Amino acid sequence: MATIQKTCLIVGAGDDTGAALARAFAKEGLTVCLVRRPRHSDKLEALAQSIIDRGGNAVAFPADARDEDAMIKLIETIEADIGPLEVAVFNIGANVNFPITQTTARVYRKVWEMAGFAGFLMGREAARHMLLRERGTIIFTGATASLRGGKGYSAFAGAKHALRALAQSMARELGPKNIHVAHTLIDGAIDSTFIRDILPNVDDLREDDAILNPDHIAQAYVMLHNQPRSAWTHELDLRPWKENW
Amino acid sequence: MATIQKTCLIVGAGDDTGAALARAFAKEGLTVCLVRRPRHSDKLEALAQSIIDRGGNAVAFPADARDEDAMIKLIETIEADIGPLEVAVFNIGANVNFPITQTTARVYRKVWEMAGFAGFLMGREAARHMLLRERGTIIFTGATASLRGGKGYSAFAGAKHALRALAQSMARELGPKNIHVAHTLIDGAIDSTFIRDILPNVDDLREDDAILNPDHIAQAYVMLHNQPRSAWTHELDLRPWKENW
Amino acid sequence: MATIQKTCLIVGAGDDTGAALARAFAKEGLTVCLVRRPRHSDKLEALAQSIIDRGGNAVAFPADARDEDAMIKLIETIEADIGPLEVAVFNIGANVNFPITQTTARVYRKVWEMAGFAGFLMGREAARHMLLRERGTIIFTGATASLRGGKGYSAFAGAKHALRALAQSMARELGPKNIHVAHTLIDGAIDSTFIRDILPNVDDLREDDAILNPDHIAQAYVMLHNQPRSAWTHELDLRPWKENW
Amino acid sequence: MATIQKTCLIVGAGDDTGAALARAFAKEGLTVCLVRRPRHSDKLEALAQSIIDRGGNAVAFPADARDEDAMIKLIETIEADIGPLEVAVFNIGANVNFPITQTTARVYRKVWEMAGFAGFLMGREAARHMLLRERGTIIFTGATASLRGGKGYSAFAGAKHALRALAQSMARELGPKNIHVAHTLIDGAIDSTFIRDILPNVDDLREDDAILNPDHIAQAYVMLHNQPRSAWTHELDLRPWKENW
Repeated sequence: MATIQKTCLIVGAGDDTGAALARAFAKEGLTVCLVRRPRHSDKLEALAQSIIDRGGNAVAFPADARDEDAMIKLIETIEADIGPLEVAVFNIGANVNFPITQTTARVYRKVWEMAGFAGFLMGREAARHMLLRERGTIIFTGATASLRGGKGYSAFAGAKHALRALAQSMARELGPKNIHVAHTLIDGAIDSTFIRDILPNVDDLREDDAILNPDHIAQAYVMLHNQPRSAWTHELDLRPWKENW
Repeated sequence: MATIQKTCLIVGAGDDTGAALARAFAKEGLTVCLVRRPRHSDKLEALAQSIIDRGGNAVAFPADARDEDAMIKLIETIEADIGPLEVAVFNIGANVNFPITQTTARVYRKVWEMAGFAGFLMGREAARHMLLRERGTIIFTGATASLRGGKGYSAFAGAKHALRALAQSMARELGPKNIHVAHTLIDGAIDSTFIRDILPNVDDLREDDAILNPDHIAQAYVMLHNQPRSAWTHELDLRPWKENW
Repeated sequence: MATIQKTCLIVGAGDDTGAALARAFAKEGLTVCLVRRPRHSDKLEALAQSIIDRGGNAVAFPADARDEDAMIKLIETIEADIGPLEVAVFNIGANVNFPITQTTARVYRKVWEMAGFAGFLMGREAARHMLLRERGTIIFTGATASLRGGKGYSAFAGAKHALRALAQSMARELGPKNIHVAHTLIDGAIDSTFIRDILPNVDDLREDDAILNPDHIAQAYVMLHNQPRSAWTHELDLRPWKENW
Repeated sequence: MATIQKTCLIVGAGDDTGAALARAFAKEGLTVCLVRRPRHSDKLEALAQSIIDRGGNAVAFPADARDEDAMIKLIETIEADIGPLEVAVFNIGANVNFPITQTTARVYRKVWEMAGFAGFLMGREAARHMLLRERGTIIFTGATASLRGGKGYSAFAGAKHALRALAQSMARELGPKNIHVAHTLIDGAIDSTFIRDILPNVDDLREDDAILNPDHIAQAYVMLHNQPRSAWTHELDLRPWKENW
């Protein structure tokens, strides 16, 4: 007799936080459905395979998260063929910094499409299915720029602020429908490919826990998902102990 | 001998706050350059004419504020043909409320384009010219939704949050270049066509000063423009005395 | 051979959240040292005994948390006679509401002494000992009034705002010393004696998880204590799923 | 025939911002009633005299603003002997910075009494009289520390946070009674005795408008007082154009 296989969608299943989230929710017994841009299909397939190799369930869905039809269909496919969506995590970043006069309309729009609009699409489509069952968890990944428009961050902070507004609005609407909508504030550098290219001393930082460990971030997301509904958290900041904030 | 005529750009020169801003900055001696969607050209021309009739200087520029090329050219035209941009005010609203599952991608995107992206275009182009002279004032109109993602406001709050991030980011970058970037928080109903259609008792509210008077809003914007630079305000909330907040 | 017995101080070990915190940290293997006003000594002793009966370690310390000498001595006694302070939780509330002109100086001062100043004393003394070992967790209990000065809440919100400032300031100073300082935002009614006297329908709310369960609150505090230091949370909001916020 | 002489109370009428506020409100035609600690009586008298010399009305009231009976009586005296209280400004600062373990209970309490409790006393007593007439303006001076608990600022930020909570709570209660309660955020160094002792280059900063000019701060307070009630501001930040924030 088959048991129903619940699913966890991760939009932005990159090499670092995204991969850690995938591993963590797979360990919780959910089939993780991983979304990343088609040009990274190989890495996405490898991530899914590595989870399967460790006894988890994972499926790679290369897709452009900004494409409405693709996202609608993708979530319908998951619901129809794999299992009901229990968790949806939006984890696409788009950290750029330009002086205002050097911020092109193309960049401004693209950053919003990736980090804002795509979050709306995932959030809305996840909500649509979760509302039928009145259960589920939706988590959006925020950053320092979600709260502060720093110098040169008009595009990135704009998208992140919009995503935070979305999370708040959805939480107020969907909480009473038993859907837990949360927003994180990742306030520090993450131990990631991106950062390893920029910071020379990442090994020292890691040794000292002075940089965000993706597995520890993922642990916080799983905790949010498992909170009893008498005491839900909407917004959670995460930063390394040594961070200057 | 001709004196240089300084200009004030108002993007979103609607019937109420926009018109009040136009009158107020014209009284300050600036030539007000008024932007509104082409389908309201008649009203825009009438507003410009009414200012001229009272001895002010005004020019109507029907345009779509979301059109990058149009906005670049429009501001270049003002600078070349009318006078240096001293003040730029972004005043486009797009207040809609829908449950998340009934928020179409078209609406979500359009609200952002009108209330967020168009603000970026105006802000960037105004900054470009003001930076050459290292002087000027740029003001963005915010709302309650700039700070709070209320139920049903994913689109509107998303755009307004993005606009606030833009204002903050620009203020931090451009302040030290002697360009004053400010953001208002209009926290209450404005005595406007939109509100008069919704609220039956607007006359009573007006009588009692219990609804925001567009001329009083405009007075606050002029005050921001005239602040001495040793003590600039970045964010200013405005609400009626009786408001419940 | 004796093992070192680590301790958890709970200042404000009342019948509800305080008691739940005591049970939860006792389950973590810490000896809980419980502080409550001397006039509630009986209840405090009973709480300690109930924990001991379930196999935990607990000691009752009836004391006035606003008394500097008493608090200094109390923590010194714990460190000398029981074990090193691993966790300190400040959980004193003082929720009152009066129109401003009916808020006496005595009430304003007392609310601050209980909910603000006593937090400072506990925080400072806990820090003093934890700094010697460069380890420990300090958690302050906040509320809706920590972020918002509502009508009639000048005293309560004043104390809660001050406590939040303390938590933030200590977190910034002590984080890099490996001491985790966190602040919670309890944004809703707690299933407590206080609330059961006010709300008639608490049984229905409890049945529906629509009121904060003290054990679930305590679970969040234990989670904060156990966070890996690469990803510490400073501020955590907690509210029931049905809460209107 | 005598005209009624309206009064403006300034609590914290020091050498810099306080003096500028006194001059500015005197110019508005109000009789300024100046409060400062008795040990600075000479300076206070000199300030009052200098205003009188310029044709204004001013009275010196040396007093300890933390003394409830003194403040009650002082305001009653003003109302009975001088004129109805139209404006009350609270301007006492107490900027100290100490590591948490070096913050004595005496300092923590004193800073709160000066910058928090004294504000409550002035606010409440001003409200009591203003409520009888249903008119008046009450302004509290805030700082960067009103919003942020920085390292070493547990005492100062605690008091400033409490003052902000007071201002918000009073605004929500008294706004609908036609009493305008506002709070400023002075986010930068003020050109003052205190700063001139710390910063060597104050002359250069002043020349460049890169330090807050007390007269410009005062101008903002007068503006707040004069706002039409259809569009009141509750919170106003002020910082120099070059400030890094």
